[in-house]
Amino acid sequence: MKSFLVIGLGRFGASVAQELSALGQEVLALDIDAENVQYISDQVTQAIQGDAQDEAVLRSVGARNFDCCVVAVGADMEASILITVMLKELGAQYIVAKAIAPIHARVLERVGADRVVLPEIEMGQRLAQRLARTNVVDYIGVSDDFSILEIHTPKSWIGHSLGELNVRARYLINVLAIRHGEGGSVNVSPAAGQIIGPDDVLIVIGTNDNVNKVVEMN
Amino acid sequence: MKSFLVIGLGRFGASVAQELSALGQEVLALDIDAENVQYISDQVTQAIQGDAQDEAVLRSVGARNFDCCVVAVGADMEASILITVMLKELGAQYIVAKAIAPIHARVLERVGADRVVLPEIEMGQRLAQRLARTNVVDYIGVSDDFSILEIHTPKSWIGHSLGELNVRARYLINVLAIRHGEGGSVNVSPAAGQIIGPDDVLIVIGTNDNVNKVVEMN
Amino acid sequence: MKSFLVIGLGRFGASVAQELSALGQEVLALDIDAENVQYISDQVTQAIQGDAQDEAVLRSVGARNFDCCVVAVGADMEASILITVMLKELGAQYIVAKAIAPIHARVLERVGADRVVLPEIEMGQRLAQRLARTNVVDYIGVSDDFSILEIHTPKSWIGHSLGELNVRARYLINVLAIRHGEGGSVNVSPAAGQIIGPDDVLIVIGTNDNVNKVVEMN
Amino acid sequence: MKSFLVIGLGRFGASVAQELSALGQEVLALDIDAENVQYISDQVTQAIQGDAQDEAVLRSVGARNFDCCVVAVGADMEASILITVMLKELGAQYIVAKAIAPIHARVLERVGADRVVLPEIEMGQRLAQRLARTNVVDYIGVSDDFSILEIHTPKSWIGHSLGELNVRARYLINVLAIRHGEGGSVNVSPAAGQIIGPDDVLIVIGTNDNVNKVVEMN
Amino acid sequence: MKSFLVIGLGRFGASVAQELSALGQEVLALDIDAENVQYISDQVTQAIQGDAQDEAVLRSVGARNFDCCVVAVGADMEASILITVMLKELGAQYIVAKAIAPIHARVLERVGADRVVLPEIEMGQRLAQRLARTNVVDYIGVSDDFSILEIHTPKSWIGHSLGELNVRARYLINVLAIRHGEGGSVNVSPAAGQIIGPDDVLIVIGTNDNVNKVVEMN
Amino acid sequence: MKSFLVIGLGRFGASVAQELSALGQEVLALDIDAENVQYISDQVTQAIQGDAQDEAVLRSVGARNFDCCVVAVGADMEASILITVMLKELGAQYIVAKAIAPIHARVLERVGADRVVLPEIEMGQRLAQRLARTNVVDYIGVSDDFSILEIHTPKSWIGHSLGELNVRARYLINVLAIRHGEGGSVNVSPAAGQIIGPDDVLIVIGTNDNVNKVVEMN
Amino acid sequence: MKSFLVIGLGRFGASVAQELSALGQEVLALDIDAENVQYISDQVTQAIQGDAQDEAVLRSVGARNFDCCVVAVGADMEASILITVMLKELGAQYIVAKAIAPIHARVLERVGADRVVLPEIEMGQRLAQRLARTNVVDYIGVSDDFSILEIHTPKSWIGHSLGELNVRARYLINVLAIRHGEGGSVNVSPAAGQIIGPDDVLIVIGTNDNVNKVVEMN
Amino acid sequence: MKSFLVIGLGRFGASVAQELSALGQEVLALDIDAENVQYISDQVTQAIQGDAQDEAVLRSVGARNFDCCVVAVGADMEASILITVMLKELGAQYIVAKAIAPIHARVLERVGADRVVLPEIEMGQRLAQRLARTNVVDYIGVSDDFSILEIHTPKSWIGHSLGELNVRARYLINVLAIRHGEGGSVNVSPAAGQIIGPDDVLIVIGTNDNVNKVVEMN
Repeated sequence: MKSFLVIGLGRFGASVAQELSALGQEVLALDIDAENVQYISDQVTQAIQGDAQDEAVLRSVGARNFDCCVVAVGADMEASILITVMLKELGAQYIVAKAIAPIHARVLERVGADRVVLPEIEMGQRLAQRLARTNVVDYIGVSDDFSILEIHTPKSWIGHSLGELNVRARYLINVLAIRHGEGGSVNVSPAAGQIIGPDDVLIVIGTNDNVNKVVEMN
Repeated sequence: MKSFLVIGLGRFGASVAQELSALGQEVLALDIDAENVQYISDQVTQAIQGDAQDEAVLRSVGARNFDCCVVAVGADMEASILITVMLKELGAQYIVAKAIAPIHARVLERVGADRVVLPEIEMGQRLAQRLARTNVVDYIGVSDDFSILEIHTPKSWIGHSLGELNVRARYLINVLAIRHGEGGSVNVSPAAGQIIGPDDVLIVIGTNDNVNKVVEMN
Repeated sequence: MKSFLVIGLGRFGASVAQELSALGQEVLALDIDAENVQYISDQVTQAIQGDAQDEAVLRSVGARNFDCCVVAVGADMEASILITVMLKELGAQYIVAKAIAPIHARVLERVGADRVVLPEIEMGQRLAQRLARTNVVDYIGVSDDFSILEIHTPKSWIGHSLGELNVRARYLINVLAIRHGEGGSVNVSPAAGQIIGPDDVLIVIGTNDNVNKVVEMN
Repeated sequence: MKSFLVIGLGRFGASVAQELSALGQEVLALDIDAENVQYISDQVTQAIQGDAQDEAVLRSVGARNFDCCVVAVGADMEASILITVMLKELGAQYIVAKAIAPIHARVLERVGADRVVLPEIEMGQRLAQRLARTNVVDYIGVSDDFSILEIHTPKSWIGHSLGELNVRARYLINVLAIRHGEGGSVNVSPAAGQIIGPDDVLIVIGTNDNVNKVVEMN
Repeated sequence: MKSFLVIGLGRFGASVAQELSALGQEVLALDIDAENVQYISDQVTQAIQGDAQDEAVLRSVGARNFDCCVVAVGADMEASILITVMLKELGAQYIVAKAIAPIHARVLERVGADRVVLPEIEMGQRLAQRLARTNVVDYIGVSDDFSILEIHTPKSWIGHSLGELNVRARYLINVLAIRHGEGGSVNVSPAAGQIIGPDDVLIVIGTNDNVNKVVEMN
Repeated sequence: MKSFLVIGLGRFGASVAQELSALGQEVLALDIDAENVQYISDQVTQAIQGDAQDEAVLRSVGARNFDCCVVAVGADMEASILITVMLKELGAQYIVAKAIAPIHARVLERVGADRVVLPEIEMGQRLAQRLARTNVVDYIGVSDDFSILEIHTPKSWIGHSLGELNVRARYLINVLAIRHGEGGSVNVSPAAGQIIGPDDVLIVIGTNDNVNKVVEMN
Repeated sequence: MKSFLVIGLGRFGASVAQELSALGQEVLALDIDAENVQYISDQVTQAIQGDAQDEAVLRSVGARNFDCCVVAVGADMEASILITVMLKELGAQYIVAKAIAPIHARVLERVGADRVVLPEIEMGQRLAQRLARTNVVDYIGVSDDFSILEIHTPKSWIGHSLGELNVRARYLINVLAIRHGEGGSVNVSPAAGQIIGPDDVLIVIGTNDNVNKVVEMN
Repeated sequence: MKSFLVIGLGRFGASVAQELSALGQEVLALDIDAENVQYISDQVTQAIQGDAQDEAVLRSVGARNFDCCVVAVGADMEASILITVMLKELGAQYIVAKAIAPIHARVLERVGADRVVLPEIEMGQRLAQRLARTNVVDYIGVSDDFSILEIHTPKSWIGHSLGELNVRARYLINVLAIRHGEGGSVNVSPAAGQIIGPDDVLIVIGTNDNVNKVVEMN
């Protein structure tokens, strides 16, 4: 278990804090708005109302003692920059900051953020990935060339075994696992005799080109 | 190649439109703000300035002819609801809409959105996943029990081969692939004799419990 | 007696709540503005200050137990949409919602309103009906062809009996009732010998064409 | 045909102007907002952009020559008062003005309005009338005691003739007409042998007490 | 002594209230702003904080019992109109209202003001009168032709008696009184032998033409 | 004829400029607002649009060449102060400035205004003077003790001659002139035999005490 | 020790008050904003919250008893002018006022300020002085021709004595003192044998031309 | 001569730009506001209207080619931070940035400013220095202990020579120069026989304690 200080409890910050708590982490949540604090108070270890731009507040919560500080303040570039600087000066161990634009990200890195996220831009890219290939359920970009994807089964494969289809040789991809429907059981390292059903989701790895060919078969 | 109508070119919408274009899709981008349109114009198939809340505008761009319409208007719930209804009534084939809150998401589904995304909340969850397990680079939640993760190599594994480590038997996980450093080459289906280097990133699959044990070895 | 939940106590909502109370119905009135609540408190069964966009508030007033919920929030489309959705999800039996534009009306119907009213547009039409035919006091559009109207007596009819005038045969309309002046007594099914006075108001039925001919005699 | 000057083209004013035009009247529509003027221009005789609070504008459109001037400016009490005074001083023949509150109505009458309407309050009352008696489709308040109503047929009457039911004697109301369903044909002065169908709407007259008894039979 | 209700304690209203008190009248001062009320409280009979647009407030102060109500609310036409109507309806005996424009003045008269003042316009005219004729200290416009003026003594008259100057015959004006300097003693009906001093101020009456000739002698 | 520069064409400034023009003076009117300039342009010698806070503008209109500069800018203390200083520095001959409060007046005098007027306060005092003595039509405060007043005729005097009434001896006031009704002819130095009519207005002079006694006879 | 009243505790005023306190002076600090007062309260003799535009406040703090009043209110010209006038009228002994523009400065002088400062303009000039001659650390403009400057040592002088360099004769400037590095010790009246080190800062006097020649040697 | 890019032409930035030009430097002035650009255009080498937060603008003016970039944007911390980062990334050689608070200064230094100035705080300190010692005209803080000051002559010294006074021995300070009155001639290295006049200003150096003793003699 690690300890987190989450600053800013808008939709993004609240989501971070809630998920961290659900993952069993220790979370101190801080926001200037009492309503936001109230809303999250029973979902985190502790929730405090205070102005994070006031250095005394950051000091009083003991910013330097957390394993990680998440600066999730909303659309206000200036606030996130000032808070990041003050955290750095107070000796924070690891600072993750949310940026709203690439230039903002560069400033945050210069003033001491160890990691910067751009939620709207990253989510936009991820959504585009999925939409451009509608059979793709989720994906990891392993490298510039390789991806792991969750895909819906190509229609022509249904009722056939992986062996019959000779997937590795014909399509130059590996089927890493098969999930039987949304929320269903998972078969890791499926055998060659495994028959593919209509609701199965395949987790595959391969070069982008090869993977895309399978995706576009449908 | 599919055709997309992206409505709203704020950071999220612009990111969707750019990534779709980069993926080779046909993209018509629409925004009420001329500056946003100008900014993206040379990155998409076509960019148009117009008020998407005006039904005549949606009709004139031929909303029904796109494979997918993405309603990415900013923080204005009302606008995204009205546009979704009008797209539905104009016969749009598939509507993806961005919501800013769960209640907003439910309204969008009721008025006809085929898919709703909540970028800030989803990104918050994803960030929390990564932060809670700092060795994790990226992950796919395959099922409630299984995950595929990109992880930094546990220190005690460095210099050993997968065979020596007997990963499958001892840790009950599969190493699906090895990436040699950030942006490096990828070894799909690594052999047992493969020696693990200090900068290698391992793509592994397993039950959450087993995977987490490895993640926490570091 | 039925029970009503009236949400939003602007001029329209207050008018609905007051009239329902005057008609002997049970009315719970809800508004976010304390002054509005105070103003109406002694004219309805109960008046409560609270934010109807907060689902907890709607739940606490027991929205599902009312025979009818009236969403009369002002000019804020978003609020009326969100409240309607939440009422629907809470199991409200019958939802009447006020819209400010046709597109707004369509959204409200899609998200679950059983009935939508457009007060300004409907009142505009009704006023136009009266102004276009100045002798008309009130009217019901029975069908596309037939109307029932209250009209001032044509001057040439004064001092004559319905029998003398032979109204039914000559004008092809029926005189359903005669009211003797503003607020006066009413003679239902007037006899043929009834003499028409100068202040009498006639309630007539007929095709629009025939009725209009009489209206325009003055 | 009469001539109308409609000042203010918000939802209410636009509705008045459109309905008057649909009824074959001559309509000059005036608004300070060019977009409102543009929107209505092909639905009325003439539409002009101008500031009605500028006496020169009112004079130039010849306010005194219209049979009726409708002051439908929005929520701005001051504007509607000043315009009404100027119309009066310019010799307008008949002025109808929209009020937003009773005190506003009293001012408008004092400064010269011949007729004042309170759309939101009147519509609220009308809606309450209908909701309090859900079988009622529409109604005219003939006097304090008598009303004419359109009502859905009481279930127990379906399949019976008016003669069988002996409506007049047993219920002390008159059935003035029967409409066969929404938008259907109308039978004026229905015969005693007429069988009542499940979708028929009855137009009845009677004292409020007697009428309400029938309404509540359902 | 008369009783006054002064509504609105801006600079104009406060000045009215203070001067009335200084003249020994009974003054009740009313304003919505607590600071204005506080400021004047020890200079009038009674000062009350309250919203004069709320009819209950006007009734509670007993508006009908004052000899005169002064509506001195600032730049808000609507407020002064509504207050004037309510005072009239409450039976106020005499209403003086401040207008900011001629059209405003006409509305106030129509809704019941017994007297309307236009301070800025009247003061502008008065200042112009004085500036155009710099020797004039003050003036009363007795009729279109005649004025009474206070003027500085023409230089050529100093050291001469009224008899010597033969003012009445030569200049066709009457010298009604002589004031010996600013704030000095006054000689009413000065004798012909009276010698005019350099600091004397003459109060004269005459036709505008004749008076102007003397004014312009300097 | 003198030349005036009037700066600021709000209600007060416009009134000054118009009255000066009507009195035959040369007037250059200056305002930053084009509409104000347009409105007054055909009533003054010349009207110019420009920012009087810009020293170059004041120089270009030749501020030093006018006999008198009137600073009539609205409610903005700062603007009137800065303009007054710049006029002074440019060598303006005589500066009249409008103040909105006594402290403002003191500043204007310190920075160089030759004369300061406080229209709202002065008009308030004047109105109070009239209201406190309702028979008074207008007045000039000749000295602390003496006033000239226009008064309505005391009722008991009507039908009597000045001689009969023996005004001078009994009431210790002088009747300087009689005006026969509003806008009527004026009788200067009325004779003892003059009979006083019911609509006559008397212009009288006397000590405040004696004058007030007559005023209060009514 | 002298006593100061500092009015306005923005960044400039707070800086004045703090530095005066640090210099051992008695300081009463006054601001309308409670937070500003709180912030400075333990750094000055006394800090009071109050509106300096209210003459009663200025009187109650005894403005006339201070050796010096500093009017440091922010960007509001009007406020600083009114406060300066009131201080003057209350008998303040010496008034220093901050101006934001030259015209503002002239007004402040006219209404009674004994000294006016223009911080932004003066600091801009000072910065330009330093930037234009990058070797200059600080300077005093002794007269139009002579300056005293702190300069970095010209590189060619390092390792040489003042005598060797023959500074006075060759460069026509006097070296008044040498400071050994930032914050180092100071040698007043350095001897001819003094060797100049690389980090030495020289304080020199001379005509601007001669001084500039040395400055530009680097 | 060096080249400067001055960004932001408010009072501070304009002052920097004007003074640099007056010192013979090459100055490119840039502001988003056209009026500011117009105002300064004939006082600098070149003045350009553009948004400095747009990286393309900074690149097009060739930011990397200037010897020094001055970031003088007003009260907007975010803007000055972003511009500083972009200048740094574009390879600017030397960046001077204006801060409005110490935390702002620290951010600017972290993101790449070579020098940060705090005009309001520095000017406040400087003013306090002068006010605390009213005889001081200007000063340079040479070290923590030593200062150079311009002071008014102590009264007891007038008419005496430096030799008589034995300044160096008795007061332990050096008189570096004497200026004969405001703007007068300067005597560098004054001789012992020099008689001190009443308007002379002495430039002295010494430890703070010794200097202060002389300052306080007056």
